[in-house]
Amino acid sequence: FRKPGGRDAGDPSGIQSPSPPSPKPQSAFSTRWAANEAEPILKTLTEYFWFNTKNQREYINITRRVEDAVGKSGVREGMVLISAMHITAAVYVNDAESGLIADVEDWLQELAPEGPDYRHHRTGETNGDAHLKNLLMHHQVIVPITEGRLDLGPWQQIFYAEFDGRRKKRVVIKVMGE
Amino acid sequence: FRKPGGRDAGDPSGIQSPSPPSPKPQSAFSTRWAANEAEPILKTLTEYFWFNTKNQREYINITRRVEDAVGKSGVREGMVLISAMHITAAVYVNDAESGLIADVEDWLQELAPEGPDYRHHRTGETNGDAHLKNLLMHHQVIVPITEGRLDLGPWQQIFYAEFDGRRKKRVVIKVMGE
Amino acid sequence: FRKPGGRDAGDPSGIQSPSPPSPKPQSAFSTRWAANEAEPILKTLTEYFWFNTKNQREYINITRRVEDAVGKSGVREGMVLISAMHITAAVYVNDAESGLIADVEDWLQELAPEGPDYRHHRTGETNGDAHLKNLLMHHQVIVPITEGRLDLGPWQQIFYAEFDGRRKKRVVIKVMGE
Repeated sequence: FRKPGGRDAGDPSGIQSPSPPSPKPQSAFSTRWAANEAEPILKTLTEYFWFNTKNQREYINITRRVEDAVGKSGVREGMVLISAMHITAAVYVNDAESGLIADVEDWLQELAPEGPDYRHHRTGETNGDAHLKNLLMHHQVIVPITEGRLDLGPWQQIFYAEFDGRRKKRVVIKVMGE
Repeated sequence: FRKPGGRDAGDPSGIQSPSPPSPKPQSAFSTRWAANEAEPILKTLTEYFWFNTKNQREYINITRRVEDAVGKSGVREGMVLISAMHITAAVYVNDAESGLIADVEDWLQELAPEGPDYRHHRTGETNGDAHLKNLLMHHQVIVPITEGRLDLGPWQQIFYAEFDGRRKKRVVIKVMGE
Repeated sequence: FRKPGGRDAGDPSGIQSPSPPSPKPQSAFSTRWAANEAEPILKTLTEYFWFNTKNQREYINITRRVEDAVGKSGVREGMVLISAMHITAAVYVNDAESGLIADVEDWLQELAPEGPDYRHHRTGETNGDAHLKNLLMHHQVIVPITEGRLDLGPWQQIFYAEFDGRRKKRVVIKVMGE
């Protein structure tokens, strides 16, 4: 049992999705143009991806969405930061192979187990393990952008890992470059 | 017992704090201005935060200090890197809840325990566990900056985690954007 | 036994090293010059470092190579991303002390052991543990650049950690700044 509106639930910041959580991102462009330049010099793009998983834990391949954001930004050389906005989820890069993802799930349950009655649960929460899984896997990665594309190795895919799902959660994407 | 001036102690690089360790950061601005522009195009700001904890291990919320650095930089869209300059400390993002911080402490002691006689101790050090805790938690995070503010989720706070304290240590902040 | 050309092997992306794997990096410069400026405003540099270790696991200090790339880029203030392009290797920052590196090796074998028959092995692979070691240690770090130098603490060194070697693998370096 976890009460709606508890810690790390929903989004009390007042920024609301205009529609049910979906792959459609919110975007904010920002480009600085030098006065007499035909091209912008530094470009940034901010996007928010919303998730609302059916299961408590899920591993979602978001590589395509990040690629689309980079394409939209027009950045040819730079970096893109992909960062979970919650403390019970992760963003990581590894293989899109279902056996491996099951291995990762087992491994996380062993190193940051769901069972114990963590001190954090005295606040009314039951998701102490999800915080530790977040710390183990990390909440962000940065991918280099080269010639307008994600500069990933052949098997590298970007994943959103949900450890305390069944509610609205967000990832922020920040593209920066030229 | 750890000898002063041992590995990862103090700061042999010659960069010295002008005063006793304190929240007051050292700053270095750098902005490039296009010749005929009223506004800088790429802005960077570098700050060093000094720590000297009373306990061997401490978890210090530095979110406000990072916010202040971002405000001072004038960057509206970009990123800020927050990175420990030592190999026995971490920077991470999670909840400012005391029960959870105690859980994290227990968890770190279990996965990277203080007891064993690590090979590293043959150098005269006794802090092998602090190196492993650093690797587990990581020494850095990057926070996106949007409309001049840290673009963090509602419960995300930035922490400096000290694993081998009671001496002067540093975190570097690098703000970059426009 | 791992078949050549299996998952995460070599580089099926068509980008080939022009010569046997060596410390000599491939480079791609990109600088934007404002029309009437004597100096570029945003500079980026991309380099690929190739590795082909003799052992299955190796820990290689790449600090000097990263320094050289930063020097070549001409960036005075900015950041450099160092990111493994494979899902069975890591990039991390810690001490260049051989005892500690042996401790790290033992610790990784304990937390992400080589023995078990991971589900991932049903694909024909035998490197499930190397994927978990990658997740534990992380595949990337970002180092701030200040006054043209890597802004590292006195004992911080950048390492490439190979967990599934004896074949060609790559690290990408992206320098960005002014």
